[in-house]
Amino acid sequence: MSHVRERFRSVLARPTCTLAANIFDPLSARIAHMLGYEVCVLSGSVGKVANLAVPDLVLSNMSDVVEHCRRITRIADVSLMVDAEDGFGNAVNVMRTVQELEAVGVSAIEIEDNVVPRQFNVAPLGLVSTAEQVGKLRAAVAARTDPTTVIVARTSALAECPLEEALERIRAYSATGAEALMLVGVRRGRPDFEAVHQATPLPLCVLNPPPDVRNDPGFLAANGLRVLMLGNPIFAVAIKAIHDGLKHLKEGGALEELHDRQASQDILRAVNRTHEFMQQQREYVP
Amino acid sequence: MSHVRERFRSVLARPTCTLAANIFDPLSARIAHMLGYEVCVLSGSVGKVANLAVPDLVLSNMSDVVEHCRRITRIADVSLMVDAEDGFGNAVNVMRTVQELEAVGVSAIEIEDNVVPRQFNVAPLGLVSTAEQVGKLRAAVAARTDPTTVIVARTSALAECPLEEALERIRAYSATGAEALMLVGVRRGRPDFEAVHQATPLPLCVLNPPPDVRNDPGFLAANGLRVLMLGNPIFAVAIKAIHDGLKHLKEGGALEELHDRQASQDILRAVNRTHEFMQQQREYVP
Amino acid sequence: MSHVRERFRSVLARPTCTLAANIFDPLSARIAHMLGYEVCVLSGSVGKVANLAVPDLVLSNMSDVVEHCRRITRIADVSLMVDAEDGFGNAVNVMRTVQELEAVGVSAIEIEDNVVPRQFNVAPLGLVSTAEQVGKLRAAVAARTDPTTVIVARTSALAECPLEEALERIRAYSATGAEALMLVGVRRGRPDFEAVHQATPLPLCVLNPPPDVRNDPGFLAANGLRVLMLGNPIFAVAIKAIHDGLKHLKEGGALEELHDRQASQDILRAVNRTHEFMQQQREYVP
Amino acid sequence: MSHVRERFRSVLARPTCTLAANIFDPLSARIAHMLGYEVCVLSGSVGKVANLAVPDLVLSNMSDVVEHCRRITRIADVSLMVDAEDGFGNAVNVMRTVQELEAVGVSAIEIEDNVVPRQFNVAPLGLVSTAEQVGKLRAAVAARTDPTTVIVARTSALAECPLEEALERIRAYSATGAEALMLVGVRRGRPDFEAVHQATPLPLCVLNPPPDVRNDPGFLAANGLRVLMLGNPIFAVAIKAIHDGLKHLKEGGALEELHDRQASQDILRAVNRTHEFMQQQREYVP
Repeated sequence: MSHVRERFRSVLARPTCTLAANIFDPLSARIAHMLGYEVCVLSGSVGKVANLAVPDLVLSNMSDVVEHCRRITRIADVSLMVDAEDGFGNAVNVMRTVQELEAVGVSAIEIEDNVVPRQFNVAPLGLVSTAEQVGKLRAAVAARTDPTTVIVARTSALAECPLEEALERIRAYSATGAEALMLVGVRRGRPDFEAVHQATPLPLCVLNPPPDVRNDPGFLAANGLRVLMLGNPIFAVAIKAIHDGLKHLKEGGALEELHDRQASQDILRAVNRTHEFMQQQREYVP
Repeated sequence: MSHVRERFRSVLARPTCTLAANIFDPLSARIAHMLGYEVCVLSGSVGKVANLAVPDLVLSNMSDVVEHCRRITRIADVSLMVDAEDGFGNAVNVMRTVQELEAVGVSAIEIEDNVVPRQFNVAPLGLVSTAEQVGKLRAAVAARTDPTTVIVARTSALAECPLEEALERIRAYSATGAEALMLVGVRRGRPDFEAVHQATPLPLCVLNPPPDVRNDPGFLAANGLRVLMLGNPIFAVAIKAIHDGLKHLKEGGALEELHDRQASQDILRAVNRTHEFMQQQREYVP
Repeated sequence: MSHVRERFRSVLARPTCTLAANIFDPLSARIAHMLGYEVCVLSGSVGKVANLAVPDLVLSNMSDVVEHCRRITRIADVSLMVDAEDGFGNAVNVMRTVQELEAVGVSAIEIEDNVVPRQFNVAPLGLVSTAEQVGKLRAAVAARTDPTTVIVARTSALAECPLEEALERIRAYSATGAEALMLVGVRRGRPDFEAVHQATPLPLCVLNPPPDVRNDPGFLAANGLRVLMLGNPIFAVAIKAIHDGLKHLKEGGALEELHDRQASQDILRAVNRTHEFMQQQREYVP
Repeated sequence: MSHVRERFRSVLARPTCTLAANIFDPLSARIAHMLGYEVCVLSGSVGKVANLAVPDLVLSNMSDVVEHCRRITRIADVSLMVDAEDGFGNAVNVMRTVQELEAVGVSAIEIEDNVVPRQFNVAPLGLVSTAEQVGKLRAAVAARTDPTTVIVARTSALAECPLEEALERIRAYSATGAEALMLVGVRRGRPDFEAVHQATPLPLCVLNPPPDVRNDPGFLAANGLRVLMLGNPIFAVAIKAIHDGLKHLKEGGALEELHDRQASQDILRAVNRTHEFMQQQREYVP
């Protein structure tokens, strides 16, 4: 078992909820690792922008995501959970997707149940059939070559279906071998989480819950919530910093005025691992 | 002639000095493009960190740089000048380097004359022989498949040699078909620039000149300086923003407090080209 | 205009039919180039096997094809026509597909009109609507950054529709800016070709026509057929040679017995361009 | 432990010598796997031609080799030993090389001790110092993230040094944690092998031994030889088959005459894993 997957599993197994870093590229993942985040999450939305400068629909394929993850895990020793959309096709495609993501060192792979639209800005198209999604999740579980890779059943059922129907889906997904559930579009807040927790033994991951939920560690812990994601503010923070800095210089602003906005040499050297490589050189280059 | 190479050449041909954006990854290049920068420069130093999280020696190869450039030009319509180190080997390697960088859409390729050290933190190793560097520059010029790609002779001669010897090298490089000179390590400030400008008809690019030079447009224009680079402050700005934002959340800081540090929706939509893709959809999807 | 695209256009413009090499990987493309083939074609079927070892459905995406083409054009100076399936999505995806294939040096891009099945071994699913295909072809034409890249409208209409309906489609495709038509599944032989030639001014490409057609240069020339493809026999030849050779050694066969099956040193040196690189070294390395 | 590395180790541990398949690309590796070869070897020489069409010097870098191996292991479940040249730089570079090759699923990594020339067709440049090579091998061993990856000390010492000096090197390499030795350029035949076997407990791999050695299983087994490589005849066989087939068609030869040179449908379907994917579809697509 790789240590990154072991760490991811220890987060799921712990009786408290852990805040994940929503990262978007290798540098942000590396910084999250330096800060001690145990889980990093690569969303589809910001992943697509950082990699391809495209909006969150249609224009990214499996290889784009695999390559992006490869570059992240290459420089950051992170436990990475990745949004693998609908698995990029049918259950046979899901199997290739899982194998390629595993091969680049991902720890957890989300497969979602909503119909991926072929066009931008269209109304949600609902969910694929339960049978199709169960087939995909079973295929994903079977495709792993490392049994410690976690398949995460991501579901919009709480947003798209009546509660009881959503719970039916969740029960079905929980019997596939998937080892965590990710909930998106939770509409009713606390009652939804309580109902899901009663319906499944799986640990839960949640994206952007309402403030009263995300700020209540007791509630999160008691209801099986194990990974908390706050959306992608850091991406927008990075964009603003780059934009404002480049704009300042373009408009003739003084270089010196950027001084206080820059990372220290200590942080820059930690990012580029100067110490680690100097140590290797001393040890192995005669 | 591609429009990006045409734009780069128009900057070189103009009788004034243009500020380049020192970018480090696709996103920063895209933002520079949005802000109207005419030239983007990818330095070896920050390119290596953004791509590989390694310090500025030894650990990056030609394919790393090519792939990094490919991802940049894929999403940002920029005139990109790239630091191709020593060309990654002898003159035959230089030819492959030029062809691969051309194939990914780079506009200008710097080939430098200092000896690339095989270890970290060693004293500068001086320059390769003039004959070797002239051979490399001639090879680079011959290797182009698009005659509008600009080969830039990057030289540390002003830092490493007595002035007259440095000018001898610069005259030799200027006769190879290279179409611009990049000066690094200028020690004597204005007199160096004046001497170089008299020694060569080529347009000059300069990295980090002293403040009195970089803030004097008249001097820059009069002495053949056509591209001005201010080093890599924006990289350090981005690192600090990501670091501080992730640290804030990790330490339990409120999500809301990051609000003012985030880019606006307008900027985010410009980065991901929402408008462009919606327009394509309206035009071509029935 | 790149010389490879110019060569492809000269083949289309010539009043005779040219035999294309059906290649499947960089080596076969390189050998085809050595033998003087003016056009190389990368089919989806064998491309998928050589690149991914998968059958001709579902499991290859745009990036797989782009990367395969990049490796081909990198080592073989060929005019490459590539099977881009349905463009890998809707018309907006088609635009990305065209731009990425252009960026790796492809000369001609086929976009087909049949519905790509999501499963193996299912009955043909018919054609997409004429409006959708016309939108895709117009999008492909508009997406080019090099106006000399040729968009090829690939159609199964002659296999899937009554003749008059097929000709309607062909007329519609011919008005999109596509500059060649590829015909697959021609059922009626000569009359089909004659009818298509009367319906469109575009040059025609044909895959696997019946023997009496493919062996009649006069007929081909008179009916607008400009590129002839014979399917993928060479791929099967290569597989057999590798298989039989490895089997021979595995079963204890003598190494010497393979001697006559091996390419000569002259051919091997032509494949790896020994002469070219030695020449570069003599010219540029002092 | 991955099953491919376990298989490689079982070959080394077995008291007999195993014939390896010298493959050159994904397809040849896949066919070797179908034929039951337990070990596949990717040489630098043919690897460079298949990947880059370049001769065996200078022009391939670490990323080229890593990418080639990734494409091989992606489609062929093989125990792959790869020629990693001199590790592509100093000991720090060796560490990156090992980690990247491991990440793409290679089972065994050869690091050689001869000085890599920067030019073509120059006389051998001798060996790097023992201290440098020992540092590289120790670095390679330390860099592994999977302890079952095998580091192979490849040595030309038997060709470049007097025997006793060669044995001194071999003893030093054997104390680094490397777990196999590869011998190239063995000049004295049987006496060399016997002397090496007495000098080191490590299993031996040998490239192209003289016929009387390679055809004597008893001698090979008794002297610690565990992996036998016969050079790259299969590459030359493939080149000839492709060349002759394409030439036949180019010169107007009949398509039918290639019939007997083509692989059967059974073999073609085994190569593209039709059965496996159909099985996946039946199992997981409702």
